[in-house]
Amino acid sequence: MLRIYISNTDKAEHTSLYEAIAFEAKRYGMAGATVYKGVMGYGASLELHSDKFWEITEKIPVIVEIIDQTEKIDSFSEHILPWIKSLSKGCLITSQKIDLILSKQGGKI
Amino acid sequence: MLRIYISNTDKAEHTSLYEAIAFEAKRYGMAGATVYKGVMGYGASLELHSDKFWEITEKIPVIVEIIDQTEKIDSFSEHILPWIKSLSKGCLITSQKIDLILSKQGGKI
Amino acid sequence: MLRIYISNTDKAEHTSLYEAIAFEAKRYGMAGATVYKGVMGYGASLELHSDKFWEITEKIPVIVEIIDQTEKIDSFSEHILPWIKSLSKGCLITSQKIDLILSKQGGKI
Repeated sequence: MLRIYISNTDKAEHTSLYEAIAFEAKRYGMAGATVYKGVMGYGASLELHSDKFWEITEKIPVIVEIIDQTEKIDSFSEHILPWIKSLSKGCLITSQKIDLILSKQGGKI
Repeated sequence: MLRIYISNTDKAEHTSLYEAIAFEAKRYGMAGATVYKGVMGYGASLELHSDKFWEITEKIPVIVEIIDQTEKIDSFSEHILPWIKSLSKGCLITSQKIDLILSKQGGKI
Repeated sequence: MLRIYISNTDKAEHTSLYEAIAFEAKRYGMAGATVYKGVMGYGASLELHSDKFWEITEKIPVIVEIIDQTEKIDSFSEHILPWIKSLSKGCLITSQKIDLILSKQGGKI
């Protein structure tokens, strides 16, 4: 599992960075991707703020979580590193081992 | 920690599948369960879409996260597998080892 | 990675406990913190309920996720344990090992 911590305001060529990463994961053939929004946070690309203060700053944390086998995760994380490195803002990328219990395919995927 | 990746539109006998799983975890005596909604995603039961396009598709990713000891997690995941396998849609189930630092019980649980 | 499972209604001296923990993590110099809200859940500080029933109970699960090196995580979790133990409500704290692939600093952090 790969997790990329960015902000909802990070951009990649006129689109949201988190959407761009999710679509790229799909194009790259990664098994699954999920995008979460946090409520508040700080770290690489964020100062501490909360969604209560969206009038001041509309930035909230966004996490893109990608699941696949170790080799594909390593390969994809190298693939997108140039995107991330070109950001003026910071970014945090983590990985962790998980066990896959079931991966059931639906009709249309 | 067990994580079940489904969609908000997956159903289990007239109720949401994620609610059904959370209530079943409680009945089964699991220590805790949390349900998260994602913003967009793709994978077993979802094609890639975003909540910006809810007019077209109201499906968003939903994750049910259940925490307990390894044996109870294994037992519960086997218990609910038949539910999941009866879905026409896909599903992703993962598990990972975590350390419990504190489990403090409140007054009414 | 440290994860603290509380509720949005848990308080710490007139402010939300989750905000207090996030700001304390920043003061303590932790690398990053993200706060998530769940949709429904049960466990240490929550009974099972859903955001559909907010008229009855406005409590939803809140998770504070803090990322740093193992020693800092251990130190910070001991630092905040007294806050948590003084809660009348329950609380669940977990930790897990993750690998840091990239930690890129932005301009203003």
